[in-house]
Amino acid sequence: MVYLDNSSTTPVCRRALEAAEKALREDFGNPSSLHMLGVTAEGYLDDARAAIASLLGCEAGCIAFTSGGTEANNTAIFGAVEARKRYGRRLIASAIEHPSVLNAFKALEGRGYEVIWLTPDNSGRVREKDIYDAVNGDTILISLMYINNETGVIQPVSAAVSAAKAAAARFDMAKRPLVHCDAVQAFGKVRINAAAEDIDLMSISSHKIHGPKGAGALYIKKGVRIAPLMYGGGQEKGVRPGTENVPAIAGFGAAAGDIGSISENLEAAAALKDRLISGIASLSGKVVVNSPGDALPYIINISLPGHKAETLLHRLETREIYVSSGSACSKGRLSHVLEAQGLPLELIDSSLRISLSRLSTAEDIDALTGALRELCR
Amino acid sequence: MVYLDNSSTTPVCRRALEAAEKALREDFGNPSSLHMLGVTAEGYLDDARAAIASLLGCEAGCIAFTSGGTEANNTAIFGAVEARKRYGRRLIASAIEHPSVLNAFKALEGRGYEVIWLTPDNSGRVREKDIYDAVNGDTILISLMYINNETGVIQPVSAAVSAAKAAAARFDMAKRPLVHCDAVQAFGKVRINAAAEDIDLMSISSHKIHGPKGAGALYIKKGVRIAPLMYGGGQEKGVRPGTENVPAIAGFGAAAGDIGSISENLEAAAALKDRLISGIASLSGKVVVNSPGDALPYIINISLPGHKAETLLHRLETREIYVSSGSACSKGRLSHVLEAQGLPLELIDSSLRISLSRLSTAEDIDALTGALRELCR
Repeated sequence: MVYLDNSSTTPVCRRALEAAEKALREDFGNPSSLHMLGVTAEGYLDDARAAIASLLGCEAGCIAFTSGGTEANNTAIFGAVEARKRYGRRLIASAIEHPSVLNAFKALEGRGYEVIWLTPDNSGRVREKDIYDAVNGDTILISLMYINNETGVIQPVSAAVSAAKAAAARFDMAKRPLVHCDAVQAFGKVRINAAAEDIDLMSISSHKIHGPKGAGALYIKKGVRIAPLMYGGGQEKGVRPGTENVPAIAGFGAAAGDIGSISENLEAAAALKDRLISGIASLSGKVVVNSPGDALPYIINISLPGHKAETLLHRLETREIYVSSGSACSKGRLSHVLEAQGLPLELIDSSLRISLSRLSTAEDIDALTGALRELCR
Repeated sequence: MVYLDNSSTTPVCRRALEAAEKALREDFGNPSSLHMLGVTAEGYLDDARAAIASLLGCEAGCIAFTSGGTEANNTAIFGAVEARKRYGRRLIASAIEHPSVLNAFKALEGRGYEVIWLTPDNSGRVREKDIYDAVNGDTILISLMYINNETGVIQPVSAAVSAAKAAAARFDMAKRPLVHCDAVQAFGKVRINAAAEDIDLMSISSHKIHGPKGAGALYIKKGVRIAPLMYGGGQEKGVRPGTENVPAIAGFGAAAGDIGSISENLEAAAALKDRLISGIASLSGKVVVNSPGDALPYIINISLPGHKAETLLHRLETREIYVSSGSACSKGRLSHVLEAQGLPLELIDSSLRISLSRLSTAEDIDALTGALRELCR
């Protein structure tokens, strides 16, 4: 099997499997229980929290586990807005966010908040100037993803932080706007230093880094308070109640600990991206690479005009090669990301997303380019 | 190990383990992916949905998977209130709900809704008359648990349904109040027929029935519409977005399919409850059984006045016997359930919850009573 759909989900790595299965089989206690089985289960959470915090450059106490990236995004957005609603009504988000951010902001728009949507330039990147221009004295939240999940384009999150700080001074705000970052595609792939980057809220997910599905986390900067989305038994400092998914969280922590050198992995991914781009350059027919050269190399969005993406995808899967057409999260719908960056319909319709992980190989790439060569004859 | 804390969480049964591990190891696809790996992953969800629907007496389409009981409760409550807010401002809940219901209603109270709290009688059961009396023309939601998680007392959910219907006619309501039922402790333990019982919303959880943590479900009656708590990629018909936790859901379905005969299991549990009660009757010192004779036999709440529950719990665990003091969900706090049913402090302070599952044995009971005999000398 050639699996090149890693931005959709990843196979669970051995270490993550072992951790998850140990918790599933042996240490089934409820972390809230007062007896030893509870304490043992809580130990899994502590270990995972430490591993993830270390990768994120923050203290373990800043990590609240959630059921995944979607819940982390929703918790951050609704929780920030609820906590800050008395300070203003303006929200800012990019138009190329993941549906779990996009649709949360649309829901808030429906509740009377003013949302400023930032569209990207032709390369898929939100303009820094647009962020600064969007922030006014009424702004309470800016949400900008670290890396776009369809194109790999790295977004100017630091500009969002600077814009929030500048606005706070300029408009003499009681509280500066919170900055939320959906870092689901970035976590474990680029070096993140949450504390130094001074982001307030950051969402990450387990199953994009070879951890199990069912776990994610929200980083909450020390001192930042948000309202919870759910209420219950007070777990995760009340930010996210409910019995913790110990096996998935254990696997998440193990997967985070298994990543190795982020920079070496990045170099390897860059080499694979180059290999893919030279491989498809020789296809008969036009090939357009929608991911710019400075995008995260793990995500390569290409268009093969004249070939419908879904047809290609299904032909590739008969060869046990798996890629994605647009985002798996918006089944069958036209990519809002490629639309926002101004791609013509012909290129959107024929766009494939090839997404790598640290476990991808040159053989995977060669199998894909070989298959495309046959299919695009 | 003698594990008698099954209402807190349960060990994962073999069938559930196998299903979860197969999904973890082999079938890691994202159910939203258009290719075969996605289709295979979706198959796990379909199978689990069918198994759970069959146990719940409803169509598979009525089941929306969540990350657990807490999320199911919160989704039901906030979703119902959001969908019905233009029809009224009164909400009704019992005072002995699980924290995930209780605290959701308290949050709504803080947002200006009127909450009528129903306190139980001395036996721990909410009075039917109180429910009828509480419903007025302004009522939009009634939430009553199927079975109390601390005492096992069976609540009059059918009265809540009748009261909602009667009120709709009496007050000529545009929409009858929705009835939500937290059935986390009932699912798989008593025969539920969601369709016939005409409950609108019902919450269930995997890890209370020997399934993995990280999965639960919300039953939504056909035709009932609620607002989602989260927004995202449209999974679970938009009620609960986010990549589904395939391994946990697969395990949940397998655990549901492994329950066997509910009535035979109930009989066995009743025999174990009898055995426990006669076993502790001969303890030196007073013993009070707080769970009435007609409570669900799987949960037996007892008080041993003169012995602090936490001390007993820790002495029992040195013998590898695990029970709970109050609910594991409200670590260290005084039980709001026993308080509401009017128990004196001395009995609350010395209360242990012994909770069985279909896998509990007479040996487990005898080990516990033997240990209590030594500890309460």
